[in-house]
Amino acid sequence: MKKSLGARTIIYPTPVLIVGTYDSQERPNLMAVAWGGICCSTPPCVAISMRKATYTHGNIKLRKAFTVNILSENMVKEADYYGVVSGKSEDKFAKTNITPVKSDLVDAPYGKEFPFILECKLLKIVEIGSHTQFVGEILDIKAEESIIDSSGFPDIEKLKPFFFDPAKSEYLGTGKKLGKGFSIGKEI
Amino acid sequence: MKKSLGARTIIYPTPVLIVGTYDSQERPNLMAVAWGGICCSTPPCVAISMRKATYTHGNIKLRKAFTVNILSENMVKEADYYGVVSGKSEDKFAKTNITPVKSDLVDAPYGKEFPFILECKLLKIVEIGSHTQFVGEILDIKAEESIIDSSGFPDIEKLKPFFFDPAKSEYLGTGKKLGKGFSIGKEI
Repeated sequence: MKKSLGARTIIYPTPVLIVGTYDSQERPNLMAVAWGGICCSTPPCVAISMRKATYTHGNIKLRKAFTVNILSENMVKEADYYGVVSGKSEDKFAKTNITPVKSDLVDAPYGKEFPFILECKLLKIVEIGSHTQFVGEILDIKAEESIIDSSGFPDIEKLKPFFFDPAKSEYLGTGKKLGKGFSIGKEI
Repeated sequence: MKKSLGARTIIYPTPVLIVGTYDSQERPNLMAVAWGGICCSTPPCVAISMRKATYTHGNIKLRKAFTVNILSENMVKEADYYGVVSGKSEDKFAKTNITPVKSDLVDAPYGKEFPFILECKLLKIVEIGSHTQFVGEILDIKAEESIIDSSGFPDIEKLKPFFFDPAKSEYLGTGKKLGKGFSIGKEI
């Protein structure tokens, strides 16, 4: 039997995307965004949505660029902090001892200590309702060498990304491997 | 030290969204979509992106509706199958013994045996590049009573959702709880 939960924004998994931007004074900022994900393969694009009132919203409109930083589970407190406090009032890089590095490709900063980074050029702005969706073209991904294995790609057991449960407001880690994509379904 | 991985569509976590639609003949179809996520709070909306060549693309344009089904990890093979085979050639509901149920709110089917379902009315179509993004307004969420706990919301340890690693093409389960959102960050 199914029960109705109403018109809500619950989906599994919900990502924890740490968005890096500069303001008009060149001050770097970080913000946790839960509404987002990849939205196109060619060109490779990521979409992030946020309210107009956020500091990051103004920064992206101004700089036409942002980074998306994926953190490891040992930084879940920092990730939560980036979503709790506004960059209008606090230097979130300094407060969490993260070193801002200016991307060599786009007008946005990433965190030197963060393991996995997308550098994005603003491609499209979509007004939906309470939220503006910014579509960014991914110009490069940069990853810490320590999380890359012999395949040349991240080992998820080293990266240890985490996600969010919006129904219970809980962060959760990565679980066990369940099977290969575009492969296990062929048994059916 | 950071290594450049190039302009790619890798993000963690990548969801596995099983999209339900009807075609012009009222035949129900299911498709696995990895490019998507919540994109607005008010109205509550979810965005899913797919290539024009997919059967689901035509169905959504025609019916202006879709469902998003979240599966449990015991159905990871079925989820992979929905992404491997086209609904043009196969009845994916029948092949996986899933019973199509017509939503009472939108012109789209969901799977009776699926634990968590979003019923969506098409709100916006955004052409990005290789992919079209469909923004759907979530009119209701329906969840199996067996996965709902005393809070009235899903217990993630009962739902057991999974996600995708696009770099390694691997499905992964839900890991351990790491902390409460809008809470643990306040320690900083």
